Amino acid sequence: MVHNFNAGPSILPKEVFQQAAEAVLNYNGSGLSILELGHRTASFEAVMNEARALVKELMQLDDQHEVLFLHGGASTQFMQVPMNLLDDKETAAYADTGVWGTKAIKEAKLFGKVEVVCTGKESNYTIIPKDFAVPNDATYFHITTNNTIYGSQWQKIPYTSIPLVADMSSDIFSRVIDFNRFDLIYAGAQKNMGPAGVNLVVVKKSILGKIKRTIPTIMDYRNHINEGSMLNTPPVFSVFVCMLTLRWLKAQGGVAAIEKLNEAKATLLYNEIDSNPFFRGTVDKADRSKMNVCFVMNDPTLEKSFLSLTKEKNIIGIEGHRLVGGFRASLYNALPISSVTVLVDAMKEFAAAHA
Amino acid sequence: MVHNFNAGPSILPKEVFQQAAEAVLNYNGSGLSILELGHRTASFEAVMNEARALVKELMQLDDQHEVLFLHGGASTQFMQVPMNLLDDKETAAYADTGVWGTKAIKEAKLFGKVEVVCTGKESNYTIIPKDFAVPNDATYFHITTNNTIYGSQWQKIPYTSIPLVADMSSDIFSRVIDFNRFDLIYAGAQKNMGPAGVNLVVVKKSILGKIKRTIPTIMDYRNHINEGSMLNTPPVFSVFVCMLTLRWLKAQGGVAAIEKLNEAKATLLYNEIDSNPFFRGTVDKADRSKMNVCFVMNDPTLEKSFLSLTKEKNIIGIEGHRLVGGFRASLYNALPISSVTVLVDAMKEFAAAHA
Repeated sequence: MVHNFNAGPSILPKEVFQQAAEAVLNYNGSGLSILELGHRTASFEAVMNEARALVKELMQLDDQHEVLFLHGGASTQFMQVPMNLLDDKETAAYADTGVWGTKAIKEAKLFGKVEVVCTGKESNYTIIPKDFAVPNDATYFHITTNNTIYGSQWQKIPYTSIPLVADMSSDIFSRVIDFNRFDLIYAGAQKNMGPAGVNLVVVKKSILGKIKRTIPTIMDYRNHINEGSMLNTPPVFSVFVCMLTLRWLKAQGGVAAIEKLNEAKATLLYNEIDSNPFFRGTVDKADRSKMNVCFVMNDPTLEKSFLSLTKEKNIIGIEGHRLVGGFRASLYNALPISSVTVLVDAMKEFAAAHA
Repeated sequence: MVHNFNAGPSILPKEVFQQAAEAVLNYNGSGLSILELGHRTASFEAVMNEARALVKELMQLDDQHEVLFLHGGASTQFMQVPMNLLDDKETAAYADTGVWGTKAIKEAKLFGKVEVVCTGKESNYTIIPKDFAVPNDATYFHITTNNTIYGSQWQKIPYTSIPLVADMSSDIFSRVIDFNRFDLIYAGAQKNMGPAGVNLVVVKKSILGKIKRTIPTIMDYRNHINEGSMLNTPPVFSVFVCMLTLRWLKAQGGVAAIEKLNEAKATLLYNEIDSNPFFRGTVDKADRSKMNVCFVMNDPTLEKSFLSLTKEKNIIGIEGHRLVGGFRASLYNALPISSVTVLVDAMKEFAAAHA
């Protein structure tokens, strides 16, 4: 068995793989592959509707919030959000908590003014900034709830009087949050939700249509809302696999139940990092991510040797991002705690052998 | 056996479905699903590289042309093409040969001036316009090589002195064309190339970087070229299935070989339409599409009854688009000629029963 700690695309539930493979051969006994199904057929419309309804149910969204599955990933939303929300002479407030936040800021500047209200840059993004003010006259405030590369996470969602926008690509559906407090949420699917190639967008309809810019048809959220997320041919298979994964999540007990498992997994690994003399975490304890656990070795020359050991144990995907170095273990929803135990045992074994 | 005449997403080769299903369970014996494979792994980089190389080989592209697999469908390109190529005060020439051409024109107008140099609108798009002039000072000339909804197709690609841009979504890889004559080609994958959720873009590098507009990072073709079509997480599974389909096409003998089969399929069906007293084609004979065959019944009250007969024969997807009515049989590369024979036999059977 392979223990897949990939940061994304990443592990999904085994039963989702089985159901997806079956549907590629013969969807629901139709004699057709899910890949050759017309998107305007009743069969696929049912998939799209169920996927959207599951998002609404699992996030406990109110009726003000619309659910869309769009082409592309978060990198598309870095542009699409300000294109839809930010007028040329207005200002949007952004929190800079890592690479993805920085990229979002860069794109927003093409559409209006940007005020970076806080940054973790000075500490190489090992903290989530605490003391900052969000201007009341900004159009919206944008945060990245979890920073995949640096392994930090907003533990408390900041209160704001202005619309709140979040990139939740790497921690959506992983913990209970009052999602209704957000005016716009986006997330590339390829962590907790499904395969690469689709983007979830949850948007409060009332924040749309307030700018003067003419938005290209395919980029205007309102068009997608009006067409029930079927403005053009959607990424059929990716939406289907998201639906399967969300069904699985519901069967596990939903977000509250998975949050407990995610906490158990993260606690297990962070406890080992903190007690094992060979390792240390890279992020301030208060801001540690429960999805992406970043750690290094006190003696970096031993890292190759530890990596060899983990390879023997069929552990994959734990090399840290080149900007941080060391290791990163991603503990997404579908990763079983038994895989974390295998990693923790490898750390113990390594420490014993090198003591 | 189901005979799938869907207009798109549409039939792909059976062996592609089998290989895709296997990879969803266990990719190349790795113990991992293709859906949980990191896109920066050597395994996926090999997929992306092979897919791009197969496009280059099958289209016989010269080294001036770059091959990209991008998120989204043709509707994304309607915007992305003028965003990259057309300056505010410049003019692009467009041919209006149907719904998709009309949509492309609408988006181009957001970025610069558009001159519609010809239109089939007066005839409800039953012809491809013949006598028109393309202004020499236009930035580019845009055509839709095959019109999926109306069933018309450019039989000869017009010569132009200015850059030529084409939406080839519904006939790419179906016939031999000198693809090097085009400066930019785009195609949603979900007809001859793969599943929905990915876009092929072939672009001559020399036409890029000539405009003053600042292009959002994710929309700038140059960024995708520089990153080897891996600027952000690509739609992994869709690219993989494109690669499998292109491998299949190569094994069939490539585009020239599949063109002969496509001609045989189209001839078989058009011959029946022309000789059967109950049916007639909707498009001028000279402009008929070999991919999407549109036809109606001389007595429209019989259409429901014919549809019942085809249903009995396991024929699906032949209802015409609501703008044209009647029937549309899509004969994409993967559709076997035996399916066309089943349809033709049903037409003969119907005629005999109602004679």
